[in-house]
Amino acid sequence: MATVTELLLPIEMDLEHLLKDLRVLIGAGHPILQAAAEHLFSAGGKRLRPGIVLLLSKALSVDGQFSKRHRRLAEITEMIHTASLVHDDVVDDASTRRGVETVHNRFDSKVAVLAGDFLFAQASWHLANLNNLDVVKLLSRVIMDLAEGEVKQGLSKFDAKQTIETYLEKSYFKTASLIANSAQSVGVLSEVSDIELKCLYNYGKQLGLAFQVVDDILDFTSNDKQLGKPAANDLLNGYLTAPTLFAIEANPRLSELINREFSLEGDIEKALQIVRDSNAITRARSLAENFAKESCESIKWIPESPSKRALLDLPEYVLGRLY
Amino acid sequence: MATVTELLLPIEMDLEHLLKDLRVLIGAGHPILQAAAEHLFSAGGKRLRPGIVLLLSKALSVDGQFSKRHRRLAEITEMIHTASLVHDDVVDDASTRRGVETVHNRFDSKVAVLAGDFLFAQASWHLANLNNLDVVKLLSRVIMDLAEGEVKQGLSKFDAKQTIETYLEKSYFKTASLIANSAQSVGVLSEVSDIELKCLYNYGKQLGLAFQVVDDILDFTSNDKQLGKPAANDLLNGYLTAPTLFAIEANPRLSELINREFSLEGDIEKALQIVRDSNAITRARSLAENFAKESCESIKWIPESPSKRALLDLPEYVLGRLY
Repeated sequence: MATVTELLLPIEMDLEHLLKDLRVLIGAGHPILQAAAEHLFSAGGKRLRPGIVLLLSKALSVDGQFSKRHRRLAEITEMIHTASLVHDDVVDDASTRRGVETVHNRFDSKVAVLAGDFLFAQASWHLANLNNLDVVKLLSRVIMDLAEGEVKQGLSKFDAKQTIETYLEKSYFKTASLIANSAQSVGVLSEVSDIELKCLYNYGKQLGLAFQVVDDILDFTSNDKQLGKPAANDLLNGYLTAPTLFAIEANPRLSELINREFSLEGDIEKALQIVRDSNAITRARSLAENFAKESCESIKWIPESPSKRALLDLPEYVLGRLY
Repeated sequence: MATVTELLLPIEMDLEHLLKDLRVLIGAGHPILQAAAEHLFSAGGKRLRPGIVLLLSKALSVDGQFSKRHRRLAEITEMIHTASLVHDDVVDDASTRRGVETVHNRFDSKVAVLAGDFLFAQASWHLANLNNLDVVKLLSRVIMDLAEGEVKQGLSKFDAKQTIETYLEKSYFKTASLIANSAQSVGVLSEVSDIELKCLYNYGKQLGLAFQVVDDILDFTSNDKQLGKPAANDLLNGYLTAPTLFAIEANPRLSELINREFSLEGDIEKALQIVRDSNAITRARSLAENFAKESCESIKWIPESPSKRALLDLPEYVLGRLY
């Protein structure tokens, strides 16, 4: 199976430039923000979001070239994503994210608030100057969805009565909305038809949902390097994701443990055992597979090119993280 | 002299509705945000910013009526202002603002980050849906200026070498930009001429600067209710405003005290004495008077009406706070 680096190969150089530009843009003139920018936009991150925007931009262009506005859109996407991560880390009081120390922990929450605001502000300014009201609307919707998702996530902590639908709605707000609406925005800039716009949106939405479900499964199945066992951080913190919600359906006793917020000794181990003994992981996996499949279906109409190939391989790559 | 309540009389009901709408909009569906919204949008605040937008909307309308979009613009203005205050209070670690406990202190900084993000997000969403790219650009510039102002303010703490120009630039970013650009936005929605747009911008800019300078003078001259003497909070925290910068010109010894960040006993008292013994307050006052005068000059062309009268009286009211 392809690695993410291979997938992003068609736009590798563009992505590198973009990250360099972002580091300069955010860091300019402020030593502390500069340190935060270095930290945030250093090499090594996956940068899937701007990667998808650039791959789509290339795939939708006749000659494989794309405009400065497409490039700017990719930058805006990454700015919004990073800004929301930095603020979420303050709200969730997270000390690390994917093994890297958070800005809020490395510096302090003041720098994190400032850096996030600065990124949001830059994003909204560059967005306005793309001079396209439709794109402004699509991405301001994303900013609203991200805030709404964070609020909803906080509200539904340890709520064992929530449905898989609420979970998917939250996942859309927090993850899929940005990918869906930025994919559609590429279509707007590339002036594709209304039906094709819908397909692009759908590609991003389904890919985003697949991505989120896979992430949530991995929290249960992948071994934490330091712990040597699954971190199950989401469950511990009361964030009930697909595996947990399916496990509750299979064994309602799990609800009791959640309702008392794992306050008795051994509760969390019991909860993990219930998840493992049920068909929850299998069901969650098949949910992700469906999203991935639908995602691919949505862009069949795009003409063949290495970029299109990469876009079709992306959902498979996302699923591949499970094996 | 008129009170602010008298000045806002022409749009009193509109302003009341607006605050009610904001409370509902922000609080809907989230108990903690609701508490924060009650706290932020409770009656009693001066609400000068949406007040100016509504007065201008009324003054520029032939029949004294204005559209839903004008009203929405006023709401957006207040959302952006409040969002930036809430986040600034986290960054500045402020426990009270104008005698009222800050969100960050009353709840915690997580709620403050969330509430601010939610407000910014709502603002950017409603902004996009005003369906006017010029207005989107003007107000996204404001969001950028606010972030930039907060960054610059942090950087220039205890910097005795900064000039009055840097101070005014910062004041523009932090205070005047919002009033200037929202005033111009009213003009865009009311379809006035380009020259008139400039005048509206200028009215807001000069009024905003007058407002900021007066605020900064008051920190030195008005007695804090609890302290029974001027709070001089800005100076204590290293924010060097007009009075301080003029006092440095008159007596460079003040720089030494600032450079050592008032670390020796009696430093702050000495500094205040230097400000008092100099012509700094007089010079700052005359600076504010000039801004106020220019502000009035900028809107002479607006047809007579009670709203125009109130707009002309506003700069005088701002100065009146000094006496």
